[in-house]
Amino acid sequence: MKIVVVGGVAGGATVASQIRRELPDAEIVIYEKGRDMSFANCGLPYYLGAEITDRSELTQASAATFKEQKEITVKLYHEVIAVEPAHKTVTILNHLTQETTEDTYDQLILSPGCQAVRLPQLADSDIAFPVRTLEDTDIIEQHIEQYDVKKALIIGAGYISLEMVENLKHCGLDVTLLHRNERLLKTMDGQFLPHLMNCLKEAAVNIQLNDEVDRIKGKTVTFKSGLSADYDLIIEAVGITPNTEFLAKSGIELNDKGYIVTDQYFQTSVQDIYALGDAIETFYMHTGQKTTVALAWGAHRAANLIAGNLAGHKQAFNGLLGTNIIRFFDHAIASVGISEKEAQECGAAHLSFDQYPQARYMPRSHPMHISVYYDPDTRQILRACFFGKMGVDKRVDVIATAIIAKMTIDDLKDIEIAYAPPFSSPKDIINMIGYRAK
Amino acid sequence: MKIVVVGGVAGGATVASQIRRELPDAEIVIYEKGRDMSFANCGLPYYLGAEITDRSELTQASAATFKEQKEITVKLYHEVIAVEPAHKTVTILNHLTQETTEDTYDQLILSPGCQAVRLPQLADSDIAFPVRTLEDTDIIEQHIEQYDVKKALIIGAGYISLEMVENLKHCGLDVTLLHRNERLLKTMDGQFLPHLMNCLKEAAVNIQLNDEVDRIKGKTVTFKSGLSADYDLIIEAVGITPNTEFLAKSGIELNDKGYIVTDQYFQTSVQDIYALGDAIETFYMHTGQKTTVALAWGAHRAANLIAGNLAGHKQAFNGLLGTNIIRFFDHAIASVGISEKEAQECGAAHLSFDQYPQARYMPRSHPMHISVYYDPDTRQILRACFFGKMGVDKRVDVIATAIIAKMTIDDLKDIEIAYAPPFSSPKDIINMIGYRAK
Repeated sequence: MKIVVVGGVAGGATVASQIRRELPDAEIVIYEKGRDMSFANCGLPYYLGAEITDRSELTQASAATFKEQKEITVKLYHEVIAVEPAHKTVTILNHLTQETTEDTYDQLILSPGCQAVRLPQLADSDIAFPVRTLEDTDIIEQHIEQYDVKKALIIGAGYISLEMVENLKHCGLDVTLLHRNERLLKTMDGQFLPHLMNCLKEAAVNIQLNDEVDRIKGKTVTFKSGLSADYDLIIEAVGITPNTEFLAKSGIELNDKGYIVTDQYFQTSVQDIYALGDAIETFYMHTGQKTTVALAWGAHRAANLIAGNLAGHKQAFNGLLGTNIIRFFDHAIASVGISEKEAQECGAAHLSFDQYPQARYMPRSHPMHISVYYDPDTRQILRACFFGKMGVDKRVDVIATAIIAKMTIDDLKDIEIAYAPPFSSPKDIINMIGYRAK
Repeated sequence: MKIVVVGGVAGGATVASQIRRELPDAEIVIYEKGRDMSFANCGLPYYLGAEITDRSELTQASAATFKEQKEITVKLYHEVIAVEPAHKTVTILNHLTQETTEDTYDQLILSPGCQAVRLPQLADSDIAFPVRTLEDTDIIEQHIEQYDVKKALIIGAGYISLEMVENLKHCGLDVTLLHRNERLLKTMDGQFLPHLMNCLKEAAVNIQLNDEVDRIKGKTVTFKSGLSADYDLIIEAVGITPNTEFLAKSGIELNDKGYIVTDQYFQTSVQDIYALGDAIETFYMHTGQKTTVALAWGAHRAANLIAGNLAGHKQAFNGLLGTNIIRFFDHAIASVGISEKEAQECGAAHLSFDQYPQARYMPRSHPMHISVYYDPDTRQILRACFFGKMGVDKRVDVIATAIIAKMTIDDLKDIEIAYAPPFSSPKDIINMIGYRAK
C-alpha cells in the first residue's frame, strides 16, 4: 500500500509515524512545502523569548531521521498543488527547481495546516512578520539581532499575539499590543477582560485597542485613529486560514470557510482520502456542533485513529472540546467547551465566582476566577473558563474529563480532588462549581 | 430538633455549619474535648516551617463566631465520654472543672477524629511531641524557641512525618528521619522509593531506617540498633487511632480497629446517630471494598450529605477514592484508588513509565514517574500513583475524575488535556496511560 501525506508538521509527521507502527510494509511519502518538518510550532514564541535556549529542541525529527528510523520519505520544499481522486494522483511543485511532478497514492492523508492571515497594509513592509513556522522564527530572530530591535508592535488578540507579547517583553523590548476592538482573547470569557488588562498593565505592555494599521512607511506606522509611531519590528497574528486552495478542483468538500469536512473517521467526502490537523472541520464531543480547533491535541488523536483505521481496527472519533490554555506572565487562562457566544445563544445557565486554588493561608495564594455555563435542564456542562495564577490547568482538565465522561454539573460535588494545603481545599473549586449550580 | 455534635474540628464544625444552612431552627451543640475548634490541622506543619507566618490563619472560626454568626453552641474542653442511645443522651466530662453532665439529643453526630499513636518508650520524655492539634503545634513552637532546638528526630514514614521533615528543614534544623522498616510513605507505590530517598538526600536529611527507639534519657536516644544520639526535639508521627473508646458501651458498631461503621448515608448501626471524619470506616467508590481514609475531602462531603439527609433530601454517598497528595520539597507525590497491596492481591495489570509533564523543551521540565494498576478484563482503573516536580496534582485529579465517571483505562486516550508548552504535551501523560495499556 502506498500512502501519501500532504504536510509534514504536527499532523502529517505524527500520522505518518503512527501508520508506520501499524503498517510496517506500507510505502509512506510526506510532501511538505516548507523548509522544515515536524518542528515544535507551539514552542516558537518561547524560543524567541529565550525561555527555550537550544534551537535544536524545536526540531524533533528531520527528513534524514525519518528515512533512517522509520523508512518514511519526506520531501521538503515540495508542495502538493492538486489532487485528482479519479486517478488517485497528486501534483507536486518543487519549490527549489520549480518543476512539477505527479505521484500516485492508494490512501491520501491531508494535513496542510493553516497559514497566518497577512494584513494588506503591511504587504510591502520588511519589518512585519507572522509567527507560524520555524522559518518565520529564524527570520524574526535574525531581524532582532541584526537591527538592534527595541520597539515591537504586535497585532492581534489571540494566543500567538499574547505569547509573543510575553516573550518579547522577556527579551526586554518595548512592546505595544494593537487590536481592532476591545475583545482580547476570544477563547476567554468576556467578564475576565479586566483581569487580562491588569496583567498587561502590570507587565508594562502598551495597549492600543479599537485601532488598526492604516499604512506604513519604513518604520513609521500610521494608525486609523490618526496616531503614528515608529517600530523596529511588527508581528502579525491576526488570525489563520486553512491551506486548502489546492483542493479547489479535487471534489473534496470544504466548508464555507475553506476547512476540510471530515466524518467521525477523519475521512473526507472522497474515498481513500483522510484529513487531520488545523485545516479540518470537526465537531464538539458534548453537543455535536461543528467547529474548527487549531490545536495539537486533536491532530495527535486523529493521527492515532487514522492509522488504526488504515490497519483495519476502525474506531470512531468522539469529537473535541477545544480544551485550551495560555500562560500569560504569572497567570494562566484556560477554557473548555463551546464558545461563550454559543453558550449564551443556546440559553445556558451561568455561574461565576472566585475561589483560592489552594488553602488560602498558604503564601502566594491568589483567588482564581471561575466561569461556567451549563444546561439548566439536562445539567450538562457546556463550557468552563478559568483565570488565575496556580492550578488553572488542573481545573480545566478535570472539567474536560467530566464533560467527556458525561458527568452533570451536580456530579462535580463527588469528585475527590487530592487535598493538601499547597494544592487545593477540602472543598475544591471543582466541588464548589457543583455545589453552586442551582 | 436538637442536634448534638461530638468533635469540633474539620468534620464536626463543617457538619454543624451545613446543618445550620439546611435547618435554620434546629438547636445545635458541639462538644469538643480540646482547647480549639475548627483549626486548620493540615496547615500545622507549614506553620511550624514558617511558610504560614500568621497564626490566626490557622483558626478559621471560634466558639464566639460560631455562636454569633451561626447560632451554634460550641463547648470547648468538653469531652463526650459516653453515649446512651436508649435514652438519647450523652455524658460529658468538663476538663476544666472535672464535672460530669448529661445532655439529650434528637440527632447525634459523631466526629471524634483520631489521635496520634504514642510510643511507650517515649512516654516520660519532655522533648517528644505528636503533631495533631493546634495545641500540639503551640507546644512544639514554644519548645523550639525556648530550648534553642538544633537537632530534631522525626519518627514515622507517613504524611505528617514527611511534612515535618520538610518544614523543620526549612527552619534550619538538623533533621533525622527514623522508621522501623524501609517502606516510607505507604500511599506511594514501592517502585518510587529510590526517588523519595533521593529527595531526602538532596535535602540533606539524615535517614535512619530499620531502626527504632529503645529508650531515652534526657536528650539521649538509644536505638534498638545500639546507636545513640542526642536530640533537642522528637516528633512522633507513627500512626493514628480512632477516638472511639467512649462508644464502647453504646451499642454502636465499630470495626476490628475501632473505626465507626457507617452506611451510605453516614448512619451508624444505631438509629439517629451519624458519623463522619477520620474515625469512620467507609468504602471505595470503584470497588466497594471497605477502607478508612483520614483526609479532609471525605469529611466535607459527608458533612454536606448528612445535613441534606437531616433536612429530608436523602442522598447516598458514592464512596471514596482516597485521592491524596503531599508536597515534599520541590516534588509532589500523589495517589488515588485502592492501595498498591490491594491492587497486587487482586491480580491487577500494572504499567509504569516516565514522561515529561510539559513540553520537554521547556526549562525546568523533569520527567514524572507514573504507575497505574487496572483490571485487565474490565479495564477499570484501580489505582494510580505519580511522583514528580510539576503537574502531579493535575494528573491524579484527572484520574480520580475518570475513575469516578467509570471511564476505562482505554477511555483515557480520549481525554482532551489543555495543551500549551508550559503545561502538557499534545499526548499528555493521561493519554499515554491509555495508549500504553495493552
